[in-house]
Amino acid sequence: MGYNMTKKTAFAAASFAAVLVSTAMAQDAPAPAAASDTAVFVFNTVLFLISGMVVMFMAAGFCMLEAGLVRSKNAATICLKNIALFSVAGLMVYLVGYNLIYGIEEGGFIGSFTPWGADDSDPIGVGYAASSDWYFQMVFVATAASIVSGTLAERIKLFPFLIFVALLTGIIYPIQAGWVWGGGWLDATFDDFAGSTLVHSTGGWAALAGAIVLGARSGKYEGGKVHPLPGSSLPLATLGTFILWLGWFGFNGGSQLALGTIDDAVSVAKIFVNTNMAACGGVVTALVLTQLLYKKVDLTIVLNGAIGGLVSITAEPLNPAVWQAILIGSVGGVIVTFAVPFLDKMKIDDVVGAIPAHLFCGIWGTLIVPLTNKSDGITYLNQLVGVVAIGAFVFVVSLAAWYLLKFTLGVRATADQERVGLDKTELGLEAYPEFASG
Amino acid sequence: MGYNMTKKTAFAAASFAAVLVSTAMAQDAPAPAAASDTAVFVFNTVLFLISGMVVMFMAAGFCMLEAGLVRSKNAATICLKNIALFSVAGLMVYLVGYNLIYGIEEGGFIGSFTPWGADDSDPIGVGYAASSDWYFQMVFVATAASIVSGTLAERIKLFPFLIFVALLTGIIYPIQAGWVWGGGWLDATFDDFAGSTLVHSTGGWAALAGAIVLGARSGKYEGGKVHPLPGSSLPLATLGTFILWLGWFGFNGGSQLALGTIDDAVSVAKIFVNTNMAACGGVVTALVLTQLLYKKVDLTIVLNGAIGGLVSITAEPLNPAVWQAILIGSVGGVIVTFAVPFLDKMKIDDVVGAIPAHLFCGIWGTLIVPLTNKSDGITYLNQLVGVVAIGAFVFVVSLAAWYLLKFTLGVRATADQERVGLDKTELGLEAYPEFASG
Amino acid sequence: MGYNMTKKTAFAAASFAAVLVSTAMAQDAPAPAAASDTAVFVFNTVLFLISGMVVMFMAAGFCMLEAGLVRSKNAATICLKNIALFSVAGLMVYLVGYNLIYGIEEGGFIGSFTPWGADDSDPIGVGYAASSDWYFQMVFVATAASIVSGTLAERIKLFPFLIFVALLTGIIYPIQAGWVWGGGWLDATFDDFAGSTLVHSTGGWAALAGAIVLGARSGKYEGGKVHPLPGSSLPLATLGTFILWLGWFGFNGGSQLALGTIDDAVSVAKIFVNTNMAACGGVVTALVLTQLLYKKVDLTIVLNGAIGGLVSITAEPLNPAVWQAILIGSVGGVIVTFAVPFLDKMKIDDVVGAIPAHLFCGIWGTLIVPLTNKSDGITYLNQLVGVVAIGAFVFVVSLAAWYLLKFTLGVRATADQERVGLDKTELGLEAYPEFASG
Repeated sequence: MGYNMTKKTAFAAASFAAVLVSTAMAQDAPAPAAASDTAVFVFNTVLFLISGMVVMFMAAGFCMLEAGLVRSKNAATICLKNIALFSVAGLMVYLVGYNLIYGIEEGGFIGSFTPWGADDSDPIGVGYAASSDWYFQMVFVATAASIVSGTLAERIKLFPFLIFVALLTGIIYPIQAGWVWGGGWLDATFDDFAGSTLVHSTGGWAALAGAIVLGARSGKYEGGKVHPLPGSSLPLATLGTFILWLGWFGFNGGSQLALGTIDDAVSVAKIFVNTNMAACGGVVTALVLTQLLYKKVDLTIVLNGAIGGLVSITAEPLNPAVWQAILIGSVGGVIVTFAVPFLDKMKIDDVVGAIPAHLFCGIWGTLIVPLTNKSDGITYLNQLVGVVAIGAFVFVVSLAAWYLLKFTLGVRATADQERVGLDKTELGLEAYPEFASG
Repeated sequence: MGYNMTKKTAFAAASFAAVLVSTAMAQDAPAPAAASDTAVFVFNTVLFLISGMVVMFMAAGFCMLEAGLVRSKNAATICLKNIALFSVAGLMVYLVGYNLIYGIEEGGFIGSFTPWGADDSDPIGVGYAASSDWYFQMVFVATAASIVSGTLAERIKLFPFLIFVALLTGIIYPIQAGWVWGGGWLDATFDDFAGSTLVHSTGGWAALAGAIVLGARSGKYEGGKVHPLPGSSLPLATLGTFILWLGWFGFNGGSQLALGTIDDAVSVAKIFVNTNMAACGGVVTALVLTQLLYKKVDLTIVLNGAIGGLVSITAEPLNPAVWQAILIGSVGGVIVTFAVPFLDKMKIDDVVGAIPAHLFCGIWGTLIVPLTNKSDGITYLNQLVGVVAIGAFVFVVSLAAWYLLKFTLGVRATADQERVGLDKTELGLEAYPEFASG
Repeated sequence: MGYNMTKKTAFAAASFAAVLVSTAMAQDAPAPAAASDTAVFVFNTVLFLISGMVVMFMAAGFCMLEAGLVRSKNAATICLKNIALFSVAGLMVYLVGYNLIYGIEEGGFIGSFTPWGADDSDPIGVGYAASSDWYFQMVFVATAASIVSGTLAERIKLFPFLIFVALLTGIIYPIQAGWVWGGGWLDATFDDFAGSTLVHSTGGWAALAGAIVLGARSGKYEGGKVHPLPGSSLPLATLGTFILWLGWFGFNGGSQLALGTIDDAVSVAKIFVNTNMAACGGVVTALVLTQLLYKKVDLTIVLNGAIGGLVSITAEPLNPAVWQAILIGSVGGVIVTFAVPFLDKMKIDDVVGAIPAHLFCGIWGTLIVPLTNKSDGITYLNQLVGVVAIGAFVFVVSLAAWYLLKFTLGVRATADQERVGLDKTELGLEAYPEFASG
């Protein structure tokens, strides 16, 4: 490579142009030469696969976040739950979930209860490899389940939890996702680009229902006061947040669903920037706000500020200008900062703060879409209808499921098990056998 | 982007098609327009580079898995071994390993003992950048060495271990890999798509030989009983497993070796799905099985269930239907669950369970290939021949090397060093100076 | 897929060629068919986005490295600083930094103080999505700030640190980066491919200035002796190093800035290999050297050996032959090994060893560029001029800023706060509430 090509400079543009000219493209023609059929197909497929990989890695992010925010006596169990829920999600999305989402009639309410089968009979007509799309959708579903595990940590029994996960990832999530992304009854009027509502609020509603049925950890609200039960490893919680941030580029960027045209590539790049800036806004806002409110910065709220910012921009990461993305994310930081103590006031015990970050910020992000998306049919009212419809469905069905589990298998560890810690009672081991006192 | 393009829906296919039409492609022609020479080249190269990156990250996965499963007094040493073995592998694959694999005559037994030199004199003829292929192969070799470090942890001396790593990555692995991937004598009749045998069993055989020569950790089998020596951090072990899972998409997906056609893109996508589902099957199977057997779920076996599922599908991740991939991975979960106590019965002390997950599941995955790969020459017998030939070669040479090291430098830390922990004796420090009791 | 396509063999080349022929490309023509305008655009954009993602993840790498190398009483604070500095960097690069770099006149000294606005009005002329470039540059700027946080850990106050970060990422870094990558006065004669000087030494100079103003941690050099203050978690430090290594493929590879031609793809692949091998050289050299010098291997120096090797190759990762890359990285390992005790002799307290790895190796890597880059104007003298000019500018301005902060807000925690730990005094919590003795 010559020297000029090795520099990071705006003027490199000239070199690119030179290359383009030298490859005999029509510079006087108005439209640039399109990529070939095959190249478009590969680009689209690659977008799904690479995005899917980092979204898959979000499962590790949730796992570290949650392992860091529970007490050490429950840290191994939350790790088990996280790797198990991802696996259950994979099986359920294959067995029934995918076709419940996409096997729906236009404007319909529910898809078909059939296992997924990759159909690559007309690849070019579809535009991407069927398996790449399945993979991308599957990791989205797992994300919703990851949200639930954090809220309910430290007191829920393992197998009832996994049964709920199977229901959530196989039935509940797919039905509501079909309403929008499958082309169902909400599709024409409701915009949720990458899933502020469909993924994050869905996980949040399911978690909220579970938290209500399950009750708070013993000691948390004893004597009418809020007693913090500090997490065992804030470095792991921070690592988890960084992994989630990383994964979100795939989460939002991949939701463009196509990469084979200049417009699509520009869109994906814009989405990356807006996603990043919303998180930056959420972090700085939570940082400043907790300093002002409490005279100390609260790291766990700052971490949730990042997540809250990310969730807030997820419903519409493409249309906002950068400064709007920063503001949308910053409001997420505000929401998280105030909602954490609010939930405590309601005595809803959310171990990792998932309900504020995923549910409340998910609602906020979805409702603010019409500010920047001026397409036909996208109105504040329509967004509210979608939020309420999906919220009501997910919350009510989840609540019923949790109660059903409660009155059959039981969902809650005994007081004694809780005191000893689930690691010993569920797994018969300790997460940190040489370190922890308790 | 218009509203319709921003939604995640099967009907987006229509939009893709519209784009395709608008770019003036011949929709009536039977075959879609191929990607240009250059685009094919770049796609292939990108596949190697991105896959190679996540496979490189598997070194961190092994490191965290092993650091989490050793006691804290050996955690820093295992970290050192992992970063050192990756570095030694890089140097050895450059100095001699690569040309030992690929500088082999068709049907031959051994390549050439020469350093690698990137040859990009005919890039289009080759189809990818020579360096991208070297990079991808190099991280595969390192993976085999990572397997060994886990099994032999907590009692092997540092420098003898690194000398063995140099031998394994520079000579042993390359010779047997040349037999198949280099086009040697096993190539025509033996199928190992991404290395169940060539990478994972090879690492497993080398580890088994080392474990036999080295003996068990003191206290492990004292008084005829098996005494668990619990790992210091199960959250780190879980993180490591998630990183391995992530890396495996590159490991298997990248082994398609090409991405510039629709067929290749579809294949890579299928491989992603099968790889994922085999891991899901391994996790759920190990989870249910340990609950049934022991009345408690065993997290470390579940983690190994994921790895066992992944190793099992590695020999043939493309041909199986999804349900077959789930079953193949589930059998991996079964193998891991039963092999861990079996090894203990044999008094073979495998600190992290690498021999069950990588060696036994590697054999299983290789032998089951003919079930789904019906190509000419692929038979159960031929697969067995390859497994035995490679296994015998790797095991015998490794055993000889370990004995040679034992009778020269010595391989085992003294009883006193083992009691104190290798961190203090080899490194003069502690992994967690403020936490551990010792 | 047929059997032959599924094997990892050099002979696969034949298959690729066959595919190429079958897709009707002119095999007799001298030049291969170029990628279309659109494909080139997408490839370039994808290079920025994927590289940017892993460079973004380096923020997590620095965070884990630093969290592992500080004492547990400061581990939560360093996590907060790392996520906050990344966020502040994002905001500052948007608000002013980007146009300070790239809004500069050819040969000029300073760009424009205006917020960045994505300009995609002429995408093809530019060759990539404007947002993808912004994203890639932003994560580079954050890297420089991450370097500072490690050196100054355990005694710097949070808000003064963040103010400095705003200055560094918004003003100091952008001005000097504009001199080279923006096309300013140093551009024609100074080569720094991916930022040994522009990123790593810049971070290092800013850290050095801060360390001088701030002074050493109490107890570090008490009684004229050097007292090690061991880090709380070497596994996390090792994880951080692996993440940095991973991110460096994007850091150096992405700095090729283009991926749409065969030459560019070959170059990116070469960069991956050289980057990897320089790190391998740094690791092995530091390992052997610390064993020879201290009779024990020093893990923290080996980790810095990896980083030192990576920084050393960053100024010119493309031109060196592989053996040269190994040597360049190995010298980085030597530098790190000797510079850590040298800094202690100077009583400059660098908590994580960032000054040796990033500043000293950054200088080394930049000065050695002319050995392998024979382009016009690239001389040892010119490289020295660049190193001195940028070093003087960054160091002097940083020193002034640190002194200004010292005499206004104060920069240093009180002796009492330092004794208790910043986690309790700045955040009101503990990183590991159940583990640490304090």
